[in-house]
Amino acid sequence: MPVGLSEITTLVPVKGIRWGVASAGIKAADRNDLALMEIELGSSLAAVYTRNAFCAAPVVLARQHGAAAATRFLLINSGNANAGTGEVGLKASFDSCAAVAELTDCQPEAVLPFSTGVIGELLPVDRIRVSLPEAYANLDEQGWEAAARAIMTTDLVAKGVSKQLHINGETVTITGIAKGSGMIKPDMATMLAFLATDAKIDQGLLQQMFEDAVNHSFNSITVDGDTSTNDACVLVATGQVDAALESESDPGFAEFSAALIEVCQILAQAIVRDGEGATKFITIDVKGGRDVAECRQVAYTVAHSPLVKTAFFASDPNWGRILAAVGRAGLEELAVEKITIHIGDVCIVRGGGRDAAYTETAGQTVMDQEEITITIDLGRGDAEAQIWTTDLSYDYVKINAEYRT
Amino acid sequence: MPVGLSEITTLVPVKGIRWGVASAGIKAADRNDLALMEIELGSSLAAVYTRNAFCAAPVVLARQHGAAAATRFLLINSGNANAGTGEVGLKASFDSCAAVAELTDCQPEAVLPFSTGVIGELLPVDRIRVSLPEAYANLDEQGWEAAARAIMTTDLVAKGVSKQLHINGETVTITGIAKGSGMIKPDMATMLAFLATDAKIDQGLLQQMFEDAVNHSFNSITVDGDTSTNDACVLVATGQVDAALESESDPGFAEFSAALIEVCQILAQAIVRDGEGATKFITIDVKGGRDVAECRQVAYTVAHSPLVKTAFFASDPNWGRILAAVGRAGLEELAVEKITIHIGDVCIVRGGGRDAAYTETAGQTVMDQEEITITIDLGRGDAEAQIWTTDLSYDYVKINAEYRT
Repeated sequence: MPVGLSEITTLVPVKGIRWGVASAGIKAADRNDLALMEIELGSSLAAVYTRNAFCAAPVVLARQHGAAAATRFLLINSGNANAGTGEVGLKASFDSCAAVAELTDCQPEAVLPFSTGVIGELLPVDRIRVSLPEAYANLDEQGWEAAARAIMTTDLVAKGVSKQLHINGETVTITGIAKGSGMIKPDMATMLAFLATDAKIDQGLLQQMFEDAVNHSFNSITVDGDTSTNDACVLVATGQVDAALESESDPGFAEFSAALIEVCQILAQAIVRDGEGATKFITIDVKGGRDVAECRQVAYTVAHSPLVKTAFFASDPNWGRILAAVGRAGLEELAVEKITIHIGDVCIVRGGGRDAAYTETAGQTVMDQEEITITIDLGRGDAEAQIWTTDLSYDYVKINAEYRT
Repeated sequence: MPVGLSEITTLVPVKGIRWGVASAGIKAADRNDLALMEIELGSSLAAVYTRNAFCAAPVVLARQHGAAAATRFLLINSGNANAGTGEVGLKASFDSCAAVAELTDCQPEAVLPFSTGVIGELLPVDRIRVSLPEAYANLDEQGWEAAARAIMTTDLVAKGVSKQLHINGETVTITGIAKGSGMIKPDMATMLAFLATDAKIDQGLLQQMFEDAVNHSFNSITVDGDTSTNDACVLVATGQVDAALESESDPGFAEFSAALIEVCQILAQAIVRDGEGATKFITIDVKGGRDVAECRQVAYTVAHSPLVKTAFFASDPNWGRILAAVGRAGLEELAVEKITIHIGDVCIVRGGGRDAAYTETAGQTVMDQEEITITIDLGRGDAEAQIWTTDLSYDYVKINAEYRT
């Protein structure tokens, strides 16, 4: 059961973007597994891809195509990740782009491919080619929700959000969809997110803003510490509304940046809330660090500790496990007596050990909640970082032990 | 059920070392939880302690005492880790050393304290003081096995081993015991190991040899990636046998080093085999790296991946998860096409993807075994590293979610 996550409500269309979907029979016979995004001419596009050295064929190709030509289409399939497939996989991915190009009269390089699903199996290009005309025929500005459903794999809930703001008196829309329910599942890869805005944003600035937003959202979540071979996020700015951003000093820049981060965070958190076997949604807030890097290091050490995660699953206020995880995070010259740790508003660690005023009853009250914040103040600087994660449950083991069998 | 681990057979006494045990009622009313090691005058001692910044009171004190005086006694209790207990905990630990000193007429600084058990509760010094005379009275060269049992916490099997070799025509013995059944459990901390030899070894050389052996054994295992607040290993050389080592060029140095590493590895592997919920014993062998550090980085990334661990629990030859873990280990300039990965003697990854000759049947045959080696050749150097780990099972979650409830 996803933690505090409900079905998509209304997604606001973005002028200049149309989505079409179809079933190519890759995921299951009766479910849409193909999504085609058409992008208006003159748009700019920013993208962030997985850093996994074993990145999948579509990631290799999407990077190449994005650099070679203006993008007109995104082609996404679920059910097959086309990862670990070598040269043959690259050709399959290119052929699927070529099929879009032929149908729509553009270059193959104007198409970026994305795949999510089982690893190590060849992408069935023929079935994609046969189903593409259907997706093309139903291209629609209202197609966001259908696309959100078509890209799902083991997700229990479709994920999407819209936000509007005003720049120069114009209403600007940001809409995004995402899929993923483990930070990685290499054989049911991956995390994908597709966002668009109708503002007009210079490509360099768009990439910079998007990277910043991704760092504060998709790159600040973890279910199991793994990074998939297929992770990708894309943001398109169609420029169909008379609101332009060219530099950081433009009016509206700060507001747009904040809105973009908010949209990315809602989508990223939705992935965690739908995390495999998740029963808790945990925010880890590390403050008082010398720099952001060490705050993230502590936050991830706590978030990845199986002992901390199983304690949260058990709603056990096991402060010793949190303390020990902070202590082994590898920070130089860490003065443990300056560290304070809270769960919710209850102080658990102060002065190098358990807070004198701590009671199990107070700790238990916090741990019984479904959404819990751990706040760690390192007491040695002004930097901070926030990440989001889940607990580790029987169901996580079950889902991941039994997935292929 | 421990994986391939049987009860201790015969432990060979080490001249100059005597062990006594007693029940102080810390762990359970009817079980020995106190072990006292008496060390003959003129021995040298090497020690390696946890790097966790939140190290427990006994670790702080053992470090201080070891530096201040020649060690005559090790005092170990199970059932209480005396961790996260602040100044009061330090005093409790010192008082327990003072109790030994008073009983045996030595300085408190000649006693090193070690504690393992529940975190955050005060050490019951009075009960230790009352039980010490019993432990002192039954000091015995044959006491190794009783000590191995007294230091157990959630261990299912007592762990100990002896090895003999010849230096200068003399028979030299190395005997060691260990406890631990998770790399850490901060509320049932920890990994402890106590070894002794009757060879005569210069203190500086002993520390150097022991650190090397610990790196190749206790620091090369992981159950859940956590490092406890109480981890400690000690090696005593009593010099009671006419076989001396003063430098690396001494005859016998190489052989003794190898034997010490072997003893440490057997004990370290026993901890993994008895790992919480373990159903598999996994060796991860990384070769062809530029240096040992990057080999260990890859090995630990694979060993800590919950996805890899759950796949092993399911006996699922899920090569994609191993490949993805290698890919995200963070190595610069990693050329994936040069990497080969085997499970057992079956090649699973070659040339950037699944090996062309790989079959699920061959993979399944390896995965059905209880002891499995993953060999990863990075193809870019001559360095190698080996670590040992377990799978991630329902029982791991059960043990760690339910421990305190």
